[in-house]
Amino acid sequence: MGMIKSWAAKAAGQALERYDYDPGPLGAEEVEIAVEYCGVCHSDLSMIDNEWGMASFPLVPGHEVVGRVAALGSQTKGLQVGQLVGLGWTAASCMHCRSCLGGDHNLCAHAQPTIVGHHGGFADRVRGHWAWVVPLPEGVRAEVAGPLLCGGITVFNPLLEFDILPTSRVGVAGIGGLGHMALRFARAWGCEVTAFTSSPDKAQEALELGAHRVVSSRDGTAIRAIAGQLDLILVTANAALDWDAMLTALGPRGRLHVVGAVPQPIPVPAFSLIFGQKQVSGSPSGSPTAIARMLDFCARHGIEPMVEMFPMSEVNQALERLRTGKVRYRAVLRNDF
Amino acid sequence: MGMIKSWAAKAAGQALERYDYDPGPLGAEEVEIAVEYCGVCHSDLSMIDNEWGMASFPLVPGHEVVGRVAALGSQTKGLQVGQLVGLGWTAASCMHCRSCLGGDHNLCAHAQPTIVGHHGGFADRVRGHWAWVVPLPEGVRAEVAGPLLCGGITVFNPLLEFDILPTSRVGVAGIGGLGHMALRFARAWGCEVTAFTSSPDKAQEALELGAHRVVSSRDGTAIRAIAGQLDLILVTANAALDWDAMLTALGPRGRLHVVGAVPQPIPVPAFSLIFGQKQVSGSPSGSPTAIARMLDFCARHGIEPMVEMFPMSEVNQALERLRTGKVRYRAVLRNDF
Repeated sequence: MGMIKSWAAKAAGQALERYDYDPGPLGAEEVEIAVEYCGVCHSDLSMIDNEWGMASFPLVPGHEVVGRVAALGSQTKGLQVGQLVGLGWTAASCMHCRSCLGGDHNLCAHAQPTIVGHHGGFADRVRGHWAWVVPLPEGVRAEVAGPLLCGGITVFNPLLEFDILPTSRVGVAGIGGLGHMALRFARAWGCEVTAFTSSPDKAQEALELGAHRVVSSRDGTAIRAIAGQLDLILVTANAALDWDAMLTALGPRGRLHVVGAVPQPIPVPAFSLIFGQKQVSGSPSGSPTAIARMLDFCARHGIEPMVEMFPMSEVNQALERLRTGKVRYRAVLRNDF
Repeated sequence: MGMIKSWAAKAAGQALERYDYDPGPLGAEEVEIAVEYCGVCHSDLSMIDNEWGMASFPLVPGHEVVGRVAALGSQTKGLQVGQLVGLGWTAASCMHCRSCLGGDHNLCAHAQPTIVGHHGGFADRVRGHWAWVVPLPEGVRAEVAGPLLCGGITVFNPLLEFDILPTSRVGVAGIGGLGHMALRFARAWGCEVTAFTSSPDKAQEALELGAHRVVSSRDGTAIRAIAGQLDLILVTANAALDWDAMLTALGPRGRLHVVGAVPQPIPVPAFSLIFGQKQVSGSPSGSPTAIARMLDFCARHGIEPMVEMFPMSEVNQALERLRTGKVRYRAVLRNDF
């Protein structure tokens, strides 16, 4: 199979450069994917900058991969060469812990992110464990499916996990790569949808994406004006919010669910939880089964992320647009190796 | 019916004094209870001291009432004069909001605590709405049942609410009035039970109360040594804990559930929630139905709180023992008017 061509950061914070590497022999349970498209996620930037201290260099980012099965290890299951598939944040999990055996592969303590240890999808080929290589159903377009595989599943999974119903009232805080998909999901789910954004210029678009109303996330008074009205608030922003106001916006049994890497601890007053039996929670991406259910849902409801397409050779320009908050709402790289 | 004889704080922080008051005509939906026993809860102290700024004086504390129905308003339902009943933290709720109609009366935004607005159970009689006056089943002894009606239901309710199973691994942090009942409940529920206490002298008793093991709540290293092993930690302490260590002790999907009035906001790092899909939550007492289910459970499993009995005329001595942390584990006042 030869060398893999890729774009890599040679050290923390650096622009990506062309980098070829030898992936070694294909593991028995591994699948090699010929990359067609790869989404660009904010966590690629965090990893390039080594914000979380878990990157090793050279680092090939990219964990929203869409491509075709190029090769199968001897013990892979359920996949065929040439099949259109996706690979997201996680490339492998242990398969034998209680979480994996219980269907919660995304909660496996030994889950292996695609871009940690492995090399990622800003490349002509990428590898993952067969269980994490998810077939794309008909009706999901390959060129826009990449962002579903990390950003999308991260906001879709809570709808599954917390038994959200079409009668639920869902808030989405932060209208970016994740948030814009959350608006589309929640609207198609049949919910009443409230968007929280700090950018007045996103208000109109939030309505078009599925919100029934928009509330400024910087305006504590406006948030408190909808006290008790929401069942779930999905926090996709990477920044501190007016947490107390957000908890107030929740109704009885309401849940503030964090999927963004908020840097500072969230201060949660006990009484704000006790009265109304509220909860604050978080979750990482989703299991392979959840990803498959999301893709089916997207196909049936015609849900796609809004993307800006770049040839992979312009990866640094795409990263720069993401870094400066200009992408509406997700960048996707097309393999031009 | 005449004047009600009681013990009241005339101003914040004061010792209780004898106080007679005219309760006025009995409301159509109200029940008057002839008090036999009343538990002494830490929140009585908080209210006497007006810690939460919601007390009005004179204040008659007492919200763990056991007694017999003395009089029924014209529109009460399901109760008979002479029947043995209990009344807890809440004396009334609106009965027509979504929470009340949905069975979550304890989450009613207009719920009326027994000792706020009303006068409480350190008295010869007390009143509450019929829905909140819960019959005591056979097999529950009147003299020890009081503490079940606030302290007990507060730690029992989360077992119901969060679908705790006999296969669940439950931690109880803080072995006092609430915690000692939580140990007995969780053990009878069939769970693996871990007690967290800051008092080495309570360790042996915690084992006798139902814990399978005891961990020092002051020893972050000991808590981290059981990383990932608990599904639910019930925090009954009113003090700050090593929250980060506690979150670490939770396994995937684990829940840190707070029922104690922890004074400072709990700092919750987003990543501690995201990896492992963990949650931090709280809840207030329980609905009338939950109380009835708890009482049935106690009767069937022979579960009782451990109490120290005082005549009501020694209420100030009982409060002082509670204030200095000496009560093992709940004080109960016997009506000696």
